[in-house]
Amino acid sequence: MEFMKAKALNEAQEILFKSLDGYVLEAEKIALSKSLGRIIANDHVMEEDLPSFSRSTVDGFAVRSSELFVAGEGIPVVLDNIGEIFMGRTTELTLAPGQAASIPTGGMLPIGADAVVMIEYTEKPDEKTVLVVKPVAPGENVIAKGEDMKSGTVIVHRGERIGVAQIGALAACGFAEISVRKQPRIGILSTGDEVVDIGSKPGGGQVRDINSYALAAMLEAIGCSTIRYGIIPDDYQQVLLALRKAVNETDMVLVSGGSSVGTRDYAVQAIAELGTPGVLLHGIAVKPGKPTIYGLIGQVPVFGLPGHPVSAMTICEQLVKPVIGRLLGRSESFRGRAVPARISRNIASAPGRDDFLRVRLLWKQDGYEAEPILGKSGLISTMLQADGIVHIDTDCGGLYAGDPVIVELI
Amino acid sequence: MEFMKAKALNEAQEILFKSLDGYVLEAEKIALSKSLGRIIANDHVMEEDLPSFSRSTVDGFAVRSSELFVAGEGIPVVLDNIGEIFMGRTTELTLAPGQAASIPTGGMLPIGADAVVMIEYTEKPDEKTVLVVKPVAPGENVIAKGEDMKSGTVIVHRGERIGVAQIGALAACGFAEISVRKQPRIGILSTGDEVVDIGSKPGGGQVRDINSYALAAMLEAIGCSTIRYGIIPDDYQQVLLALRKAVNETDMVLVSGGSSVGTRDYAVQAIAELGTPGVLLHGIAVKPGKPTIYGLIGQVPVFGLPGHPVSAMTICEQLVKPVIGRLLGRSESFRGRAVPARISRNIASAPGRDDFLRVRLLWKQDGYEAEPILGKSGLISTMLQADGIVHIDTDCGGLYAGDPVIVELI
Repeated sequence: MEFMKAKALNEAQEILFKSLDGYVLEAEKIALSKSLGRIIANDHVMEEDLPSFSRSTVDGFAVRSSELFVAGEGIPVVLDNIGEIFMGRTTELTLAPGQAASIPTGGMLPIGADAVVMIEYTEKPDEKTVLVVKPVAPGENVIAKGEDMKSGTVIVHRGERIGVAQIGALAACGFAEISVRKQPRIGILSTGDEVVDIGSKPGGGQVRDINSYALAAMLEAIGCSTIRYGIIPDDYQQVLLALRKAVNETDMVLVSGGSSVGTRDYAVQAIAELGTPGVLLHGIAVKPGKPTIYGLIGQVPVFGLPGHPVSAMTICEQLVKPVIGRLLGRSESFRGRAVPARISRNIASAPGRDDFLRVRLLWKQDGYEAEPILGKSGLISTMLQADGIVHIDTDCGGLYAGDPVIVELI
Repeated sequence: MEFMKAKALNEAQEILFKSLDGYVLEAEKIALSKSLGRIIANDHVMEEDLPSFSRSTVDGFAVRSSELFVAGEGIPVVLDNIGEIFMGRTTELTLAPGQAASIPTGGMLPIGADAVVMIEYTEKPDEKTVLVVKPVAPGENVIAKGEDMKSGTVIVHRGERIGVAQIGALAACGFAEISVRKQPRIGILSTGDEVVDIGSKPGGGQVRDINSYALAAMLEAIGCSTIRYGIIPDDYQQVLLALRKAVNETDMVLVSGGSSVGTRDYAVQAIAELGTPGVLLHGIAVKPGKPTIYGLIGQVPVFGLPGHPVSAMTICEQLVKPVIGRLLGRSESFRGRAVPARISRNIASAPGRDDFLRVRLLWKQDGYEAEPILGKSGLISTMLQADGIVHIDTDCGGLYAGDPVIVELI
């Protein structure tokens, strides 16, 4: 096996993206009501004006605003009430000068009207007459045809994730079905003689299979489906067999756990044996997460992840999720929102290495303070305490207490 | 029907919470692997030390650190190599003074050892001898038994939402099954003569049923299942029938849309007719969202929501989601993360009313600027543009450009 030097994070990301070179998962049509969290495959464009007619936002009277400039308490403007506009129906009414028509919230403005006066500012001495005691500006209490979105507007862009607002907008535009990328199927293999299933009580020297559950949850949270292929002992033939099966059945495979050198060697060997181009990355200059492996078997990316839970999760965030983003046709990964904060203490970092520091956010008078959660990367408790992650760039020698940092929320 | 004064937001929330008075949905056991996003029903407590044995975090030699104080380049300390510790197995080895044992990452520390020296700082002139050229501190490269979490630690608290970290921690502690609250089933009724299904092309005066899709997505995003009961015209008997069915089949009902006064009256009347205690709230001093209705039919909360999409979503956020939180045994709602920002322009607000202002976040040199998205609450485009919401409290007369604000991310 060829020796490979640990790559810088940005080099590693380039290798990954280049290896996939525009390959994306297929698209499929699904019901809008089932689309929350999915990734849209094509730009979806508004094909009509929204709203499709000018409508009132209040209960009142549709009027010609220019006739009401002088209206006021004690000096009402007198208009002829020519009738009623009904919800959900086209109106045949047309306002001539001096006329008004009763209109409900959401009602369609009659021709000639350009504003609605709220019912509170009117009086009706009889069925045929309306007194208005307050002027209205042109367009007041009205949403004009096309004011919300004009025909031709792109409402959701290719690669965007469908959230609540997108569902509302697509519903408004009549997209009962939409085109999304197929849900990525991610296979997860646990390896290592020391790993036992979470339902078992570990014997001496054994640990529970934390990573495959935590990794599955991370990927399900961004809309993947996951398949666990069980716990594979440190035996090359068994690793090879399980990896072959997973590669055949899924869109991407994570080989999780197995913190010993032997396990990692088996993963590298199996990737190389199963197909081309094979192993493309072995070791990265990232803390935590150094012993990361990446390879491609045909079109199926395979990651070998570090055994320590926090290391595995860091690499999942920094490399696996960006690759899944590419498979889904996104230009970006699935990044959490960034929040500005000040670091609470000095933090050393080795230049030439990207550090990812878990922090707790504390709300202070003038903004957030980011308190580093120091602890070995094998510790589960550090995961539970973290609110976000600070990226200490490869060129940075460290941070001083009080330095401004960007915290990516997790 | 009794007249009710518009309630302040905090009064409204009190009425809602009081009406439920400790009622929570039942608990059920589910597999940990299916629990992402669910709400845990009871405190889950660590019942053993984690890790359950002291283990090495590197490949190297288990040693007695006190014997290595003098070790250095050129002055190696010579130890007897008494054998190898294997992954995943209990070791029978015991280190006597002057001894070391080879240990892999994750391996179990032998009795007598208190640190591990990395393989890089050792030499093996023969199988029985190890030379160490660097001292180690007690505990170095070791995670001690119980260092991560001690037996008795509460790992996930009653009412907490299961995220990735919680799944990792519960896996580590051997919870293959966990006790969670049943998934709330939310019924959604669309009402209004003007409302047509999203697959249809609206005629004059008609609008598509945006709200029931956007509301369903908002609630699915916090782990609810939703059932849509279709679009009910403005006919009292049909509203009554549909509401009765929904109340019988679900844990909570939202009556969506129907911006006309008539529709709202039907909802109020139907809630009152179907059961006690009936309507408890009618109108709140919140912008947008004034024409909100709340009632309780037996143990099923029913909301009548405003017709404008952004108003409906604001009330869903401020009242519906907190009530779902209570049904799930949470003391808090499902709030987004708060981010500090400065408002970009003056904003007027009427005292005596809680305003919820949608804002776009712009990253400036010294932090976020919150740019209000001004627009009528019926506009879908405002939903698409918003990053978060600023709450302008009932006592506040408005904001000046540059004022610090808290933005709740959406």
